[in-house]
Amino acid sequence: MTRDLEGHGASRLLSNDPLASIGRDVERSDARDKTTGRAVYTVDIDLPGMLHAKVLRSSRPHAMLLRVDAEAARCARGVHAVLTRDDVPEHVVPSYGWFVKDQPIVASDRVRFIGEVVAAVAAESEADAIAALKLIQVDYEDLPVVASIEAALDHGAPELFPSAPPGFVPHYGPGARGGLRPAPNVCYEFGYTCGDAALFETCDHVFEDEFRFSRMQHYHLEPFVSVVKASAERLEVWSATQTPFLLRKELANLLRIAETSVSVKTHYVGGAFGAKAHLRTEPIAALLSQASGRPVRFCLTLEEAFFTSSQHAAVIRLRTGVMSDGRVVARKGQIDLDAGAYSDASPLVAEKAGYRLPGGYRFQHIDSTARCVMTNTTPAGAFRGFGGTQALWASESQIDMIARRLGVDPFEMRRMNLIGLGEPFVPGESGCDSDMVEGLALVADRVGYGRPLPPNQGIGIAVGFKDGGGVNKPAQARVKVTMGGDVFLATAAIEMGQGSGTALSQIVAEILRCPLSRVRQVPIDTDSAPFDPGTHSSSGTVVMGRAVEKAAVALRDKVLDFASETMGVPKDEILLEDWQILHGQKAMPLRALIIREFGGPGFEFTAEGYFKAKLDAEAPLDNKCVFWEIGWAAAKVAVDVETGRFNVLDLCVSGDAGRAINPLTCRGQDEGAAVMAYGQTLFERMLYDGEGQLLNGDPLMYRLAMSEDLPRSFQSILQEQGHGAGPFGAKGMGEGTMLPVAAAIANAIHDAVGVRVTELPITAERVLRALKQRDAASVRNCNPLPSHALT
Amino acid sequence: MTRDLEGHGASRLLSNDPLASIGRDVERSDARDKTTGRAVYTVDIDLPGMLHAKVLRSSRPHAMLLRVDAEAARCARGVHAVLTRDDVPEHVVPSYGWFVKDQPIVASDRVRFIGEVVAAVAAESEADAIAALKLIQVDYEDLPVVASIEAALDHGAPELFPSAPPGFVPHYGPGARGGLRPAPNVCYEFGYTCGDAALFETCDHVFEDEFRFSRMQHYHLEPFVSVVKASAERLEVWSATQTPFLLRKELANLLRIAETSVSVKTHYVGGAFGAKAHLRTEPIAALLSQASGRPVRFCLTLEEAFFTSSQHAAVIRLRTGVMSDGRVVARKGQIDLDAGAYSDASPLVAEKAGYRLPGGYRFQHIDSTARCVMTNTTPAGAFRGFGGTQALWASESQIDMIARRLGVDPFEMRRMNLIGLGEPFVPGESGCDSDMVEGLALVADRVGYGRPLPPNQGIGIAVGFKDGGGVNKPAQARVKVTMGGDVFLATAAIEMGQGSGTALSQIVAEILRCPLSRVRQVPIDTDSAPFDPGTHSSSGTVVMGRAVEKAAVALRDKVLDFASETMGVPKDEILLEDWQILHGQKAMPLRALIIREFGGPGFEFTAEGYFKAKLDAEAPLDNKCVFWEIGWAAAKVAVDVETGRFNVLDLCVSGDAGRAINPLTCRGQDEGAAVMAYGQTLFERMLYDGEGQLLNGDPLMYRLAMSEDLPRSFQSILQEQGHGAGPFGAKGMGEGTMLPVAAAIANAIHDAVGVRVTELPITAERVLRALKQRDAASVRNCNPLPSHALT
Repeated sequence: MTRDLEGHGASRLLSNDPLASIGRDVERSDARDKTTGRAVYTVDIDLPGMLHAKVLRSSRPHAMLLRVDAEAARCARGVHAVLTRDDVPEHVVPSYGWFVKDQPIVASDRVRFIGEVVAAVAAESEADAIAALKLIQVDYEDLPVVASIEAALDHGAPELFPSAPPGFVPHYGPGARGGLRPAPNVCYEFGYTCGDAALFETCDHVFEDEFRFSRMQHYHLEPFVSVVKASAERLEVWSATQTPFLLRKELANLLRIAETSVSVKTHYVGGAFGAKAHLRTEPIAALLSQASGRPVRFCLTLEEAFFTSSQHAAVIRLRTGVMSDGRVVARKGQIDLDAGAYSDASPLVAEKAGYRLPGGYRFQHIDSTARCVMTNTTPAGAFRGFGGTQALWASESQIDMIARRLGVDPFEMRRMNLIGLGEPFVPGESGCDSDMVEGLALVADRVGYGRPLPPNQGIGIAVGFKDGGGVNKPAQARVKVTMGGDVFLATAAIEMGQGSGTALSQIVAEILRCPLSRVRQVPIDTDSAPFDPGTHSSSGTVVMGRAVEKAAVALRDKVLDFASETMGVPKDEILLEDWQILHGQKAMPLRALIIREFGGPGFEFTAEGYFKAKLDAEAPLDNKCVFWEIGWAAAKVAVDVETGRFNVLDLCVSGDAGRAINPLTCRGQDEGAAVMAYGQTLFERMLYDGEGQLLNGDPLMYRLAMSEDLPRSFQSILQEQGHGAGPFGAKGMGEGTMLPVAAAIANAIHDAVGVRVTELPITAERVLRALKQRDAASVRNCNPLPSHALT
Repeated sequence: MTRDLEGHGASRLLSNDPLASIGRDVERSDARDKTTGRAVYTVDIDLPGMLHAKVLRSSRPHAMLLRVDAEAARCARGVHAVLTRDDVPEHVVPSYGWFVKDQPIVASDRVRFIGEVVAAVAAESEADAIAALKLIQVDYEDLPVVASIEAALDHGAPELFPSAPPGFVPHYGPGARGGLRPAPNVCYEFGYTCGDAALFETCDHVFEDEFRFSRMQHYHLEPFVSVVKASAERLEVWSATQTPFLLRKELANLLRIAETSVSVKTHYVGGAFGAKAHLRTEPIAALLSQASGRPVRFCLTLEEAFFTSSQHAAVIRLRTGVMSDGRVVARKGQIDLDAGAYSDASPLVAEKAGYRLPGGYRFQHIDSTARCVMTNTTPAGAFRGFGGTQALWASESQIDMIARRLGVDPFEMRRMNLIGLGEPFVPGESGCDSDMVEGLALVADRVGYGRPLPPNQGIGIAVGFKDGGGVNKPAQARVKVTMGGDVFLATAAIEMGQGSGTALSQIVAEILRCPLSRVRQVPIDTDSAPFDPGTHSSSGTVVMGRAVEKAAVALRDKVLDFASETMGVPKDEILLEDWQILHGQKAMPLRALIIREFGGPGFEFTAEGYFKAKLDAEAPLDNKCVFWEIGWAAAKVAVDVETGRFNVLDLCVSGDAGRAINPLTCRGQDEGAAVMAYGQTLFERMLYDGEGQLLNGDPLMYRLAMSEDLPRSFQSILQEQGHGAGPFGAKGMGEGTMLPVAAAIANAIHDAVGVRVTELPITAERVLRALKQRDAASVRNCNPLPSHALT
């Protein structure tokens, strides 16, 4: 393996000891708070004098704003502040964005999608605020609309941004190309090339296919919400966010104040899936609080989430060169992502989607391009899988299609081409830390791959593959222990349902040899929390876990040093166990030693841990990944060829936890991601008409997978292959099984009835259409084999 | 000097550089918050659903509690919870105390002073709570009362505690003796001896005198107040406290929960003077919050403070052996402190009072005893000067009396006996870090000592002397810096008006070479703040200052290491200046380096500092002091011999800051302490009748010094002798000038009219009585010299 990570201190130190806390299905540390309703989410924050914000949203997909008249609203009952383009203070930067600063706090000269914020009101109650909004008069002058990738890229298409907003390129290194606004309605284009393009000439076959990916809503149960209390030049912000420090930076930049003047507080977050990774409700709440002198709560409805962020719809074209025996050689891919009306995280999603286009295969030449296309729809942003979902849907579909075209068994096709354990993904990149073939064999076998099936039933398999752990992500953690041996663990890792809080606490408990119940996580406040760029990229257990591990090891060292000195015994003769010092047969309580040294008020030991994956100086990429997140899926389907309806009879997914800190939550993550992917495969999509009108933006119309929709048999296999870069050999979880499910089901349908659906969701209508096209072609060509490009 | 402290890293590093932040009269960092009313004190905390607590107080000084019937109160309007002895949950420890656990949360079997808490109510408003208290019926059976030290020590006096409550001895080392409950109504006795008692036999003269010290109220402007929010097994506590971590420990012990289950939050405290150094309102607020399920605010009135804590009244007897030329040889002293009804901080006050009885003089033999005497009055506790005020009142009076008896000039008497710079106070103790004679000459000269005076005018001088910095006190601090160079300083040092926050920020600004305005102090929450035993003993600038200095130096080191590595230049060629790296003529902004390394979300550097004065293994005491706090005073008075009325014409006080971090606040501390001492000298005393009834417990009756009472000339001299153990040579400030003022004024009156007042306050009546006694004696003896023991 070429990964260049620091040694696993704790794992080594404890390698001969039985583990007490690691690898056990312990009760989640947040379980009691959440099941008893005591857990405090941002939606629960209530401050004396707090006002409530509501916003007026654009009814037009694309229009000039001629007039915004809010005078009547200012005088309405209970109203304390109104925010229109005329109320944004001069010193405030009026627009924001991750990379391109294109999204206005409230619309200024034009609106670019239906649902865009035009004005905001803070009032004594939400009802007062809603009533006041009705008094605001807006005059629009409609502009032509681009509501799809194709429309936006059309020659002469109307432009969302006639002049370029300021921005910067995400930070990929040599080997990658990236550029802002390379074409009208394209905010960013990423490119990556390695190997020689002439290799295509050496291939026996070159296949070109196109795939379409639909757009999901994150559908997190806790809505977008923040409470901001502004006083003088300071802001206190309570926010349901995955990225409190990033939020602090962006708010400070927006309001042109020091970052020390903004404190962001976050405890539990009720689901995020990427949606809560940047400014959402906070700028409006902040400006309304500054204007009113009162704390302001701004909580969106679930319907408003559909106007706030979403996944990226995509069109993916793959050109893949292979040898007749199935060996892959070269791939040129292009992915066009529907970024919606504002750029948000799109440039980074494009980089990740483009980088992941080859999937986990041993290509000698790669030429990837990814573009962010602006349309008059809801802005798209970070989403579980982060570009990988789009890339893998296409890649794992096409690999299967090629196998069938060549007459190679799809499992064998993958076996011969998948990158092996320790083998680098591309030159200079980290080596793979899972045996992908071993994992694939597990899920394939579980659904009966290779065994005879009844007619119109089929089995499909797929492997998801993405770099995990974030780009250049540093992590810091702090552990402090009271005189009585109770432990505070301070990190800015967000517990958003994934169970990272429990896993991190288990790491501390293991190293300090104390019961898990003694470890308490400190709610996050950016004033005091150790810095962290955010909870994303499945980085919690691996990247933050390593920082936590180091903090705990450092703390244990300090305690042993102290005990050795005060007891007058050599450090190598003593052990720490449940806040006692073991020396031979004797056990000395640390509380007594501390009081002896420091007196009655006692003392707290404290230590910090820092981790950042080391970059290899020889690597051409500076995004070397910390670990690879692999997800395997195998599906068995039965198709009704008369109607196109199909049932998923069996779905088996698997992830490799490396070493599972808490197997229960690892399984929860694998199964949760698989169900999310299953919903997208069969049902979920945000449906726009040609004029940018969202047709199904509410819980009744937007079709989620419900428990009765689940496959008749749904299984998960937790693998612990043992090669992770995290504490005790752990790898990150939570995104892997999001990646292969759609392709596995499409491949199963192809296996069952020989037709290919290349557009999500896979509906009965689409299967039926494919069957009819196949039959028509069959009549024409008398050729039962699938044709080159079925769409 | 025998002090054994670690090297002054920053002082050395910067010794050749001009200082940018240190030694300047900078605007206090809390000035704008406080002058604009934005500062948040605990009294300002308001939570949704918050209830208000009020308590029923005992009307009897000493009685058995026969019946407490609160049934009617439970049903009263707005009442959510009632707390009587019957409502304290079984798992709760019903009594608390620093050393002896003798103070009940609410009275159980008996009451021991007028004003003791008998019952508490939490209601929707304070008015509702007060109304409900009137419905509580209490039956008492009176017990005999001891309302003074003498009454309590009388043979056969009624005992406050017929059986001994549990307790432990404060932690003095060899050379000191301490014992719990050595006699009825004495909760603790401390003794310290050094040298040979036979030295008394070698003395030319042995003088015995007795002094009386009155009891002050702390009179802090922010009342005792806390807000507690209890949920399940957790407590969130907002408290006006000097000791958040001690409070956390005590609350956790009381409620038998882990310290991680209690978080104490403190920001600004509106004055404390020692009063807010232990549990006050918090246990009742906690139990009422647990009982009601609502946050509870418990805020005392100023009048209730008189029933909560006070200084110790005292009777001091000194037996001092000297040679005819004035050289001091031996001193045996006994101090009896009126501890009131509960022991509170009394054992430690006794240790400090006893240890400080010799004053700053070179005695060859010392034999000190200090007793805490229990009386049916308000419990006495920690108070600015902490036992030293009582000891120095007696010691500096007697030294003057002896000088006059021997015909030695009082200045010369002190010059020949004061411990010199670097000379240890007692064997094994730290050496003195001020030239006491130099400082004394300064104040004496300023008021015209030695120059001729009109009749009935006189000048008195005195030197206060106490060990500073606390016993075994560890300090921890944390500094973290945003990507943009703004600094968070996290400590648990309480800003209670003394300006320590500004001084600590100046230390950071100096070391990081940044503007002071960039340093922001993080409000304290025990969950995340670095541990600290409390803000007391003038330890802020020296002890915490050293921890802050080390944290800042460590942070600077980390930043320079990072810059050296990323810029590829040797560390010794670069400097940090206002968040830029200076390399020759070039300046590189750190923000750019950070983004290059960590990407857009950035990074925070963080570092911790730890300081604890090293104990010398050979020292017989383990309370070696960190620095000596010296206060000098000189007073000129004019006495009207017909009435006994006198005017303080001139008062000059001085302290040695070692090196003043912020001269403005150092002067403020010296002058504030001197005015407090001046008030005690002339006016302030809590006046009890023989039955334990406080006669003047309200702002109208309790006589404070007002601005019109100040001396006609009031001067302070800030000395910077340069020998401090703190950062840049600083010493602690804030208690020193509390110590010598009373004796200086008594000495001046003696100088003016030849009579001695040995009891505080020094009133016209007492002066007149002394004059009449002197005249009567003079008629009898025809001897105008003062007699042996004037009282």
